Amino acid sequence: MIRLYDTEPSGSCHKVRLLLSLLGLDHELVPVDFHGGEHRTPAFRKINPFGEIPVLVDGAITLRDSQSILVYLARRYGDESWLPLQPEAMARVMQWLSVAGNEIQNGPNPARRAVVFGRKFDLAAAQKASHRLLTVMDAHLRDRDWLAADHPTIADIACYPYLAVVPEGSVDLTPYPNVRAWIDQIESLPNAVPMPRQPAPTPD
Amino acid sequence: MIRLYDTEPSGSCHKVRLLLSLLGLDHELVPVDFHGGEHRTPAFRKINPFGEIPVLVDGAITLRDSQSILVYLARRYGDESWLPLQPEAMARVMQWLSVAGNEIQNGPNPARRAVVFGRKFDLAAAQKASHRLLTVMDAHLRDRDWLAADHPTIADIACYPYLAVVPEGSVDLTPYPNVRAWIDQIESLPNAVPMPRQPAPTPD
Repeated sequence: MIRLYDTEPSGSCHKVRLLLSLLGLDHELVPVDFHGGEHRTPAFRKINPFGEIPVLVDGAITLRDSQSILVYLARRYGDESWLPLQPEAMARVMQWLSVAGNEIQNGPNPARRAVVFGRKFDLAAAQKASHRLLTVMDAHLRDRDWLAADHPTIADIACYPYLAVVPEGSVDLTPYPNVRAWIDQIESLPNAVPMPRQPAPTPD
Repeated sequence: MIRLYDTEPSGSCHKVRLLLSLLGLDHELVPVDFHGGEHRTPAFRKINPFGEIPVLVDGAITLRDSQSILVYLARRYGDESWLPLQPEAMARVMQWLSVAGNEIQNGPNPARRAVVFGRKFDLAAAQKASHRLLTVMDAHLRDRDWLAADHPTIADIACYPYLAVVPEGSVDLTPYPNVRAWIDQIESLPNAVPMPRQPAPTPD
């Protein structure tokens, strides 16, 4: 049985939940008390020395880092469409895994954590970085349906969760119609599970 | 001919230069005036909309993001040892590509840019993050020679440059003997080129 150390509001965890569901893989969610700091405890650091979630356990294999877990699941359980092996095609997927781990982690993620969870981030800087990223992505998606190929790959799965909830960081998605269409497309894939939305902190 | 848009002091560029050299691939370096902001100009954004270097051009293929370029070069020109295809083995490489793109980018890199290049980063935070990372890496390397396999992979190439010059960010490597031995090992690989060290900003 596959086990996923997980917390519900995390987009990093959700990308793994989404691929598990798309691939139809039975799994057990192990809730980690993220706000209580369980992931930073010595006990949890024995599972992941970096003190972060998600962590995937599949039999004797323990893996940290959401992008790496997507690579593992795609290679082990998916067909080659999720992570193509041809050099250029694989590198094009990797480019967007890097965006998921860098530009999205430094823009949409902290904007949302500041607004929804009251964390101390530079909200204006995170919102500005989000708009910079969304501008590039919207242009990229102008003449294509998926980020890295002519079909969905783990690049789309990796980038989707924090972009689906970027309005929670008070970043308006209206100017980015291609990004909105791409989000809808991912949520329409067979067996897709949408990123859970948080209740608004103030009335609309 | 392979062309690499490059700037000499960049560790992100150096990881590509290092793998090109290890693989014995002829290439041309195209210097980008990083400090003059050439990578942020509209002309450069036509090559990479994210406005970053390195960028690799190989015939009709243009790739951004240093980790993605390593994946491409390993898959196209290397043998499978540089990037194993077996699911767990590939994911273990990917874990360290993520560390190169995240923990190293948020610790050793800004510490060095603050000290050597006078950039406005929170130096104390970057140094603290560097020590946290080095502590995990030194423990990881206690009973292994290479980060992700029993031989060098692109994981080692990706993590090496900014760690080789982490003392330039006033982060002492003395407490991390396994990291130091690993740096020496990489620099001893046939055809390796060491990360260029910057002159000290103040006398020792």
